[in-house]
Amino acid sequence: MQKLPIAIVGASGYTGAELLRLLLLHPEVEIVSLFAGRAAGTNIADVFPQFRDRLPLTVETFDVNKVAASAKLAFTALPHGQSARIVDELCQAGLPVIDLSADFRLHEQRVYEEWYGSASEPSHPAPHRLADAAYGLPELHRERIKSATLVAAPGCYPTAAILAAAPLLKAGLIDPTGLIIDSKSGVSGAGRNPSRAAHFPEVGEGVRPYKVAGGHRHTPEMEQELGAVAGVEVRLTFTPNLVPMSRGISCCVYGSPTAPNRQAADYQACLEEFYRDEPFVSVLPSGKLPDTAFVRSSNRAHVAVQYDARAQRVIAMSAIDNLTKGSSGQAIQCMNLMKGWPETLGLEAVASFP
Amino acid sequence: MQKLPIAIVGASGYTGAELLRLLLLHPEVEIVSLFAGRAAGTNIADVFPQFRDRLPLTVETFDVNKVAASAKLAFTALPHGQSARIVDELCQAGLPVIDLSADFRLHEQRVYEEWYGSASEPSHPAPHRLADAAYGLPELHRERIKSATLVAAPGCYPTAAILAAAPLLKAGLIDPTGLIIDSKSGVSGAGRNPSRAAHFPEVGEGVRPYKVAGGHRHTPEMEQELGAVAGVEVRLTFTPNLVPMSRGISCCVYGSPTAPNRQAADYQACLEEFYRDEPFVSVLPSGKLPDTAFVRSSNRAHVAVQYDARAQRVIAMSAIDNLTKGSSGQAIQCMNLMKGWPETLGLEAVASFP
Amino acid sequence: MQKLPIAIVGASGYTGAELLRLLLLHPEVEIVSLFAGRAAGTNIADVFPQFRDRLPLTVETFDVNKVAASAKLAFTALPHGQSARIVDELCQAGLPVIDLSADFRLHEQRVYEEWYGSASEPSHPAPHRLADAAYGLPELHRERIKSATLVAAPGCYPTAAILAAAPLLKAGLIDPTGLIIDSKSGVSGAGRNPSRAAHFPEVGEGVRPYKVAGGHRHTPEMEQELGAVAGVEVRLTFTPNLVPMSRGISCCVYGSPTAPNRQAADYQACLEEFYRDEPFVSVLPSGKLPDTAFVRSSNRAHVAVQYDARAQRVIAMSAIDNLTKGSSGQAIQCMNLMKGWPETLGLEAVASFP
Amino acid sequence: MQKLPIAIVGASGYTGAELLRLLLLHPEVEIVSLFAGRAAGTNIADVFPQFRDRLPLTVETFDVNKVAASAKLAFTALPHGQSARIVDELCQAGLPVIDLSADFRLHEQRVYEEWYGSASEPSHPAPHRLADAAYGLPELHRERIKSATLVAAPGCYPTAAILAAAPLLKAGLIDPTGLIIDSKSGVSGAGRNPSRAAHFPEVGEGVRPYKVAGGHRHTPEMEQELGAVAGVEVRLTFTPNLVPMSRGISCCVYGSPTAPNRQAADYQACLEEFYRDEPFVSVLPSGKLPDTAFVRSSNRAHVAVQYDARAQRVIAMSAIDNLTKGSSGQAIQCMNLMKGWPETLGLEAVASFP
Repeated sequence: MQKLPIAIVGASGYTGAELLRLLLLHPEVEIVSLFAGRAAGTNIADVFPQFRDRLPLTVETFDVNKVAASAKLAFTALPHGQSARIVDELCQAGLPVIDLSADFRLHEQRVYEEWYGSASEPSHPAPHRLADAAYGLPELHRERIKSATLVAAPGCYPTAAILAAAPLLKAGLIDPTGLIIDSKSGVSGAGRNPSRAAHFPEVGEGVRPYKVAGGHRHTPEMEQELGAVAGVEVRLTFTPNLVPMSRGISCCVYGSPTAPNRQAADYQACLEEFYRDEPFVSVLPSGKLPDTAFVRSSNRAHVAVQYDARAQRVIAMSAIDNLTKGSSGQAIQCMNLMKGWPETLGLEAVASFP
Repeated sequence: MQKLPIAIVGASGYTGAELLRLLLLHPEVEIVSLFAGRAAGTNIADVFPQFRDRLPLTVETFDVNKVAASAKLAFTALPHGQSARIVDELCQAGLPVIDLSADFRLHEQRVYEEWYGSASEPSHPAPHRLADAAYGLPELHRERIKSATLVAAPGCYPTAAILAAAPLLKAGLIDPTGLIIDSKSGVSGAGRNPSRAAHFPEVGEGVRPYKVAGGHRHTPEMEQELGAVAGVEVRLTFTPNLVPMSRGISCCVYGSPTAPNRQAADYQACLEEFYRDEPFVSVLPSGKLPDTAFVRSSNRAHVAVQYDARAQRVIAMSAIDNLTKGSSGQAIQCMNLMKGWPETLGLEAVASFP
Repeated sequence: MQKLPIAIVGASGYTGAELLRLLLLHPEVEIVSLFAGRAAGTNIADVFPQFRDRLPLTVETFDVNKVAASAKLAFTALPHGQSARIVDELCQAGLPVIDLSADFRLHEQRVYEEWYGSASEPSHPAPHRLADAAYGLPELHRERIKSATLVAAPGCYPTAAILAAAPLLKAGLIDPTGLIIDSKSGVSGAGRNPSRAAHFPEVGEGVRPYKVAGGHRHTPEMEQELGAVAGVEVRLTFTPNLVPMSRGISCCVYGSPTAPNRQAADYQACLEEFYRDEPFVSVLPSGKLPDTAFVRSSNRAHVAVQYDARAQRVIAMSAIDNLTKGSSGQAIQCMNLMKGWPETLGLEAVASFP
Repeated sequence: MQKLPIAIVGASGYTGAELLRLLLLHPEVEIVSLFAGRAAGTNIADVFPQFRDRLPLTVETFDVNKVAASAKLAFTALPHGQSARIVDELCQAGLPVIDLSADFRLHEQRVYEEWYGSASEPSHPAPHRLADAAYGLPELHRERIKSATLVAAPGCYPTAAILAAAPLLKAGLIDPTGLIIDSKSGVSGAGRNPSRAAHFPEVGEGVRPYKVAGGHRHTPEMEQELGAVAGVEVRLTFTPNLVPMSRGISCCVYGSPTAPNRQAADYQACLEEFYRDEPFVSVLPSGKLPDTAFVRSSNRAHVAVQYDARAQRVIAMSAIDNLTKGSSGQAIQCMNLMKGWPETLGLEAVASFP
C-alpha cells in the first residue's frame, strides 16, 4: 500500500524532532520533506544526530509549492505568528495541516491578540482560518478532529490541565470558579534556542515558578477549553514551574467541591467513567499518584484525583510528556483520526523508564 | 576565649552532616562529640567523606552522661519518636537542646498523636516537655527562642510556607480559610536511608506529587503557626512534590484577597515591611521570583508575592535550602539567639551557585 | 499469523522492564507470561506503572513447566549465579533461551569462577551449558547466534568497549597490549534495588570512578572478546565511572598505533569499512563525537575514532544505551537472528531526544 | 584592623561569582569594586541573585584608575586575550594581580600562541609579563607564589590532573611518556554564556567526550607542569568529558610503572608522603576513591591511587570542584600566600553535601 507522504515545516526544533521520531515508527506514513529556517541546507543528521543513518533527508527552505508537490499532509512546528502565515499558505494549497503552534488554538481573535499580539504585530496574521481549526485534544473533540482539515495541536500545559480537570467540571463536581493550576515542567518546553533560562548551570539544581499570576500564554487556552466543558466562563490562576529534567509535565488542579458530602470515591468514579474508553489516558487506582517518569517519551497520560476532606478541596492530577502527549504525539493522534486510521497507530510505545 | 563545646546526637544523617558543615565554620563553638546508632564506632570521615582531614572524631553510641560530660549544648537530629526520649534525657541532665525532629514542634499533644502516633507507639514519649519547647522560627518567635532551653527546629516545608504566608495573614491581606500550598522539594528531604522513592533511576528524570490531600505530617505544623499568626484556626491543603535535585524547597501559597481593590504593590509592601530588619530573608523586588538555586547551601530565604488580578488570587512564594534554612542552619540561628551571639554568626555564606 | 509466545523470567528489574517495553512494539511476538521472585503475585502495572492499561499480566513465581507450557522462547533477566540454574532448566525443557545475566558470557569455566565465584558458591552452576552459549554480539557473532539455542547477551560495558575497539584490533591498527578503557555509565546499570551507591542525594550531583584496577567483572568479558578479535591474549585496564543520569554508556578506548605513519583518516576508514552494513552501528563522520543523549532508549550505537598525533595515541569512542543496545535491545536483536526475522524488527526506534 | 580592599575585574561570570562568594567569608578582605563589560551599571544582585541583601555593589565599566584608587589587590576573571591587556594595565599601576584566565599560565610565549593565538590575534598581548607570573598551584609552587605580584591561577582540568599525577612523576614511579588523562567535568566549566553545548535539554541526560586528541587548550598547561616535575618533556593524551552536573571534575591519570615489582602500597605511600602537610589535599585511604560530591563548593582535593597488577598500570585519581580548587578558591589560596596570611583563611569550608 502507498504510504501517506508527510512534510514537516519547522523540523529543527524539539517538537519537530519528536514528530520525526514518532513518524519514523508509523506504518502508514513516509516523511518526504523537511523545512526549517536557519537549518536549511543541512542534513537532518547534522541537526539532530539521533537520525544518523535513519533519515537521509536534507532540510529545505520553506516553499509552499515544494510542500504541496511532495506531501499530502503537513505538520507545522513553528513559532506563533510565523506559523499562521505558513499554515494559511498550506491550507490555500489544499493540504490538511496539523499546526503545533498557538496560532489556531484560541477561537476568538480578540483573545489571541490580547495574549499574543505584540507592538510590531498586534493582529492575528490569518484570522479567517480560526473558525476552521479544530482544537486537537481528542479526548474532548474527537469527532470535530476527524472531519477537520486544520487542527491546532494543544499546548503542553493545557493538555495536562484539561485532562485532569475536565471530567470533574463536566460532571459538575467542582466549582468552575477559583480553580488553581500549579504545573511543573521539564526544560525542553523552552525549545532548542540557548538562553540563560535553560542554561544547564542555571537550572540544573534548582526549581522555580515563572510567569506567575496570569503571565503565561497558556492561560487563555485552559480557560477556553475548561469554560466550554463547564458551560460557564472560567478565570483561573495558573502557575508554571521549571524543574531540572528534560521532559514531562506534572499538573495539580485545585478545585472546590460543589457539594460537601461527597466521598473520594465519587471523584475517582467520575474520572474512571470519563476515560473508560480512552486509549491514551489511564486513571490510576485510588492511592496511586501520577509521575512523569512513567509516561516519558510516550503518548500516554496518567491522571488521578484525591479529596482533601479536612480542607474541603479536590485535587486532580496528571502527568504527561510535554513533547509527546503534550505536543507531537498528540498531533499524530489527531492525524490518525483525520485519516480514519486506528487512533493509536504508531503511538503504541509505553514510557522509556528508567 | 573558650569555645562552646557542642554535641550532635544523630550525626550520620543529612541534617547531622549539615550541622557539622556549618558548625565547623562557627567561630564560637567546638564540636566535641558525635553520636549515632548504626554508625557508632566509625570515624566521621568514613560516614561522610567530606570531613576527611577536617574533623577527626569517631561516632559514639548515645549515652546521656557522655554528652553531658563533654558538651554544653546538644543538637538532636533523630527520627521522630526516638528523638523525644533522648531530648528528655538531655534536658534532665540540664543541657540546652535544639531538636531537629518533629517531636516538639506541635504544641498540642493530641495533634501530635493524631499525626505521628502509630499502633506501636500511640502516645507522645515526653509530653511534659511540650510546653517548654520554643518553635524555632526566629522570624516569628525570636524573643521566645532567646530564653528557651529546648528549641524545636521547624520542618523544611513549614519554614518555606510560613515565611511566604505569615506576613499577609498577619496583616489580614489574605483569607486564612482555603489556603493552598504547593511545594516542590529536592530529594535530600527523604534522608540518607536508601529507598525506591529516592533511588536515582526512579526519580532522576521525573517529578511527582506525593502524600497529597492531608497526607503529609508537616500539615498540622503549618496550620498551627499560620493559625497563630492569623488569630483563627486554619485548615489548609498542602501538596508536596518531589523534584530531581538534591537540595531546595520552592513554595507557592495561594490565598484569596480579603478586599478586591488592592494592588500588587500593597502585597509587596506588606512583605517588605514584615522582613525589613530580618537578616536572612530577602524580599525580592517586584517582578523577580524565588529560585532555589540562589539560596542553595545558605541559610537565606527568598520571598516574593504577586497578585493575579484576573483571577483574584494572591500568590506568595519562597525558596529555601531544605537542609539549611529548612533545618540545620535555622537550628544554628536559634543557637545564636539562645547564646546571645549575633544572629548570623557562622551563617554568613550566600548560596553556592552555580 | 500466529505470534511467537514469549516468557520473561526476571521481569521486575530494569532489564526486564526494557524487554517488555521493546517487545510490546515487536510485531512477531506476544508476551504471555512474566516471572519474578519478590514481585510474584503482583500485576506488572503495580511493579512498573508505565504498563498500566498496556500489559494486563500478573507476575508469577518461576516454574519451568509453566514457562514451557506458555512460551516458545524465554528471556532470563536474573542475577548471575541464580540465572544459570534457571537457564539450565529452560534448556532442558527444550526452550530457546536468551540470558541477560553474566552466567554464559565467558567461555572458560575457570575464568567465570575466578571473577564470579563466591565463598558460598565457588563453582559455575551449569558448566555443561557453557559450550552451547553464543556470545550475543551480532556485530561479531551473527552466524553463531542464528543457529544458537542459548544466547548470552553481552554486558553493557563490554558492548560499548568492543564496538569501539574491535575494528581497530581486527585490522591490526592498534596494539592489543596496554589497552585502557575508561567508561562512563548512567545509574540504571546498578539495577532497581535501592542502595546508597544509587541513592539520589549521593549520586545526583557528582561523578566518580569505581571498581578501578581490575575490580569490575566486565573486564574478563572484554578481554575474551577483544582477545579473540586480535588473535592474542589481551590484558587491559578498565575503569567504570558513575555519572548522574539514568541511561547511557560513553566509552573511550585508548590504544597505541602499531605503525607511526598513519593518518586519522586510516582509523576512520577502518571503522567505516567494518560497520558498512551494520544496521545498528553508525560511524560518525570525522570530527563528530558520540554522545549518549543521541542513542538513549534506542538500540543504536554511535562510534568514532580520533588520532592524537602529538601523543601517538588512538582514541576509539562509543555511546550506547546501557539498557537497550547494552542489554535488552541487543537480546531482542539476537532473537530476531535466531528466528530468521529481519534483524531490526521491533528495534527501529531512534533515540528519544531531548 | 583595616581590611584589604579588593577589586574583581570580570565579576559577571561564574568564576567571578565564586570569588565573591568566598571573599565574603574572608576575614581579612573587603570587596570594594566590581567590574564587567555588558553587566556594567547593574547591581550585582541583579546579575547574581544570591547576593541580594548581602553585597550592595554596582558593577562598573573597567577603568584602571578606578581600580587603583579603590583596591590594593585585583582578581581578573576574564576571557583569555582580553585578560592579558587588563592585567598589564593593573600591573603597571602597581597592583598585585591574581589572574584566572589562561594568559599567564604558560611560560613560553611560543606555546601560548600555538594554542591560544587566533587569526585576528596571533600574538600574546603582553609577553613581557610572562616571566613575572607565578603558576598558582601552591602544592608545587608555594614559595614562588609568596613573593609574586602576578599569579596565574591554574586551569581546572590541569589542577585536577597535576594533583593526581605529580607525586608519582616526581618520585619516578610512573613513566612520563605515554600518560593518558581522562577527565569528567560539570557544565559550569563552560561559563555563563548560553550555548547549545550547555543547553539543559542537550546535556541534561547524556555524557560525552569533547575536544579529544589534543584539541583542548589545557593540554599544554598539564604538559608544562608535569614535565617540570618529571624533569623531561611530556606529551600526553587528554580527554575531557562533559557530565550532567554543575560543578566538579573527576580525573583519572593512567601511567605505566617504571618498575614491575612494586606493590599498590608503594604508590599509596608516595601520595601520602607528598601531601603529608598540605592543608587542602586529602589522600584517601587505600580502597576509597574520589567523588566530586565530597569536595563540592570546597577548596579541597581528594586524591587516590590504585595499581592494576594484571595490566601493569597505575591509576591516579582526583576530585575537585572546578570553580573552587579548580579556579577561584585556589586563587584565594594564592592571595593568602602572597599576603602572608594563613593559607586556609576564608577557605575552611568542607563540601556542601548532599
